[in-house]
Amino acid sequence: MTALLAVDEARIRRRIEGLAALTERERPYTRRAFTDLYRQARAWLADEFRSGGLEPEVDAGGNLVGRRPGRREGARALASGSHIDTVAGGGRFDGIAGVVVALEAAQVLLENGIELDHPLFVYDFLSEEPSDYGASCVGSSALVGTLTPAMLAAEAPSGESLAAAVQRMGGDPRALGAPLPDAGRIAGFLELHIEQGPLLERERVAVGVVEGIVAIHRMALTLRGKAGHAGTTPMTLRRDALVGASAVVQDVWERARVQGEDGGFVATVGRMEVVPNGANVVPGEVRMALEARSLDEAEVAAFLEATLERARPRAAELGLELEAEVVSTAPAVRSDARLLAALEASCQGRGLSYRRMSSGAGHDAMQIAQAAPVAMLFVPCADGLSHHPDEHAEIADIAAGAAVLLDALQRLDRVL
Amino acid sequence: MTALLAVDEARIRRRIEGLAALTERERPYTRRAFTDLYRQARAWLADEFRSGGLEPEVDAGGNLVGRRPGRREGARALASGSHIDTVAGGGRFDGIAGVVVALEAAQVLLENGIELDHPLFVYDFLSEEPSDYGASCVGSSALVGTLTPAMLAAEAPSGESLAAAVQRMGGDPRALGAPLPDAGRIAGFLELHIEQGPLLERERVAVGVVEGIVAIHRMALTLRGKAGHAGTTPMTLRRDALVGASAVVQDVWERARVQGEDGGFVATVGRMEVVPNGANVVPGEVRMALEARSLDEAEVAAFLEATLERARPRAAELGLELEAEVVSTAPAVRSDARLLAALEASCQGRGLSYRRMSSGAGHDAMQIAQAAPVAMLFVPCADGLSHHPDEHAEIADIAAGAAVLLDALQRLDRVL
Repeated sequence: MTALLAVDEARIRRRIEGLAALTERERPYTRRAFTDLYRQARAWLADEFRSGGLEPEVDAGGNLVGRRPGRREGARALASGSHIDTVAGGGRFDGIAGVVVALEAAQVLLENGIELDHPLFVYDFLSEEPSDYGASCVGSSALVGTLTPAMLAAEAPSGESLAAAVQRMGGDPRALGAPLPDAGRIAGFLELHIEQGPLLERERVAVGVVEGIVAIHRMALTLRGKAGHAGTTPMTLRRDALVGASAVVQDVWERARVQGEDGGFVATVGRMEVVPNGANVVPGEVRMALEARSLDEAEVAAFLEATLERARPRAAELGLELEAEVVSTAPAVRSDARLLAALEASCQGRGLSYRRMSSGAGHDAMQIAQAAPVAMLFVPCADGLSHHPDEHAEIADIAAGAAVLLDALQRLDRVL
Repeated sequence: MTALLAVDEARIRRRIEGLAALTERERPYTRRAFTDLYRQARAWLADEFRSGGLEPEVDAGGNLVGRRPGRREGARALASGSHIDTVAGGGRFDGIAGVVVALEAAQVLLENGIELDHPLFVYDFLSEEPSDYGASCVGSSALVGTLTPAMLAAEAPSGESLAAAVQRMGGDPRALGAPLPDAGRIAGFLELHIEQGPLLERERVAVGVVEGIVAIHRMALTLRGKAGHAGTTPMTLRRDALVGASAVVQDVWERARVQGEDGGFVATVGRMEVVPNGANVVPGEVRMALEARSLDEAEVAAFLEATLERARPRAAELGLELEAEVVSTAPAVRSDARLLAALEASCQGRGLSYRRMSSGAGHDAMQIAQAAPVAMLFVPCADGLSHHPDEHAEIADIAAGAAVLLDALQRLDRVL
């Protein structure tokens, strides 16, 4: 083992604050992809890349990538990064921390005169957040070839297509639709991210070693009864869709509480629309959105199926029709065992507490997994709050994550 | 007893169809109060009043009243009627049937040369349905003096005040705010209405003898938890407002089903709004409207109170704040015993099946009760459907109701 190298906490802070300053003034923190503010941030970031020994370039997918060559002839690259675009009224850390720590790792290697056998790629992926053009994870999808012609043709309200917007950012939409050459040149990809959940903070654990990104299945449920006057329709003759919908919510809650006791499974009814939704009208129809998430995709599918099996007889009892449609099924993405081992060994090497966990949210790494081994590490996020101006992570915690990333890259440089 | 007089079913049909023809063409059946179409219908109705031996006039409250003198010096009037305005996209019978049968009773008396001791007043009350000006039961409230200055000052989106609109209909807003002279001249008021509920049809009963109009208490409930990412917030750390709201819906349903077994009590959660209402967001807040109705106002108040008592510990368990506000409490209105007896005797006299019931909906009679004894009779309404273009009542059933009304007026003429 080589000696442990110190990361520069002050530099990490300066870069996070530097990006935070590039926000819409009236609506912190907002730096939407494709805007002038975003281009300004990228120009700033390209300079920072240079000072960290990374040669910046915009690839055909519109990603800003900083490259440092490796010593070994023909070796594929170690890659890390995330994104610097935000949702409207988002935070200072989501995505940003992952780009800043990847740059920090590169710069510490440079400053300590350490050359890796593998090239190092640091990514700022284009438009990870959903944008006016529809798609999310635009740049990481483009890199691995899953950005479809339909996604590229989608237009923002301005009338500009995503293809035109990618081009405006310096990309080359004609080259998209198949994996870019760089996708085949990545030996392993690590992404640091704030947890966006409360587990690490609650358990006072420094690092989440992310075993995978959960499968997400979404279902649209509609319960149809009969609207009626709330004064003149006797209880015995009602077909109240909201009663049926509420029973589903209760059932989902009770079962998901048990199944999700260990934190590995969640299920949510997040949206509910009541029709006609009048104080004096018996609800005739309720439309609701149900989703379940777990690393175990079979568990997710079985949960939704069981929800339907339990809802059907209850709906029939209440005189309701039940209609259900699976609207999306995103498979789980498993982290690579060698990358996980490198992260765990690095936590141990720094004496940092860690726990294995899954990511309940999607990330760029989910896309990159289609082309290369990936793993993620999480750092604590105050109160689990994200996509909000109050989103907060301690710089010291991010610096600890940067150290783990730095060490893991060095370990992987030896084993991959 | 005098001989039973025949009502003219064909004439009832013709008048109902005559009013149905006066609808917005694109949106049957729509004849909103204060519109040109409504004024046209009133002019038509005034002519029909004349052909039925009633002298039409518009009172200070904007009601069209048709009067026939009585034989006995100084006797107060027997009154009947309802309204001919509709909701947008309403039906052909709600209100209209009550005006047409009152006119029919007057006309049958005229044609049979029968003079009553009491004067007879037939009412078409102004704007019973909620209008762009806010208030409902405008004319009947004006008659009994409960139309407040605030209600009269309320403006439609056009900027016209209700006072100006009443004046435009021929009323005199300066005379309002106290009972009109006619309010003190009514000895008893009967209103026929379609049931707007399914009981009479289901039970194949010809006439509902309405013991009273239920008390209605309404409550706004807000449950506040914490919105969170549906993927990254573990089940164990959630404060899901929709779970709490659903528990309230279930509890209200289970208890109201038992309490409403005999049809005398109903409770409804008709409106529910979920915030932020995203498929992938744990609901942070739910606002809902709860109401209960019964002739027994204490039962209504106790039900809402018990709902809160049961909801509070459940909300606390779920980590939710519960806020509740009683937004309105309309007292019950009891029918007059002599009027009820006259209606029942008249059903018996015609060999018509009848049952006592309460009205779950409000009607003009509820206002008139503040100045005079009232009772209502219901006729069957197909599938309980009302405020809808498919609202339907059989003309034969309405004619049977007209006969009961005719007989009851004659009975009351002898006993009041």
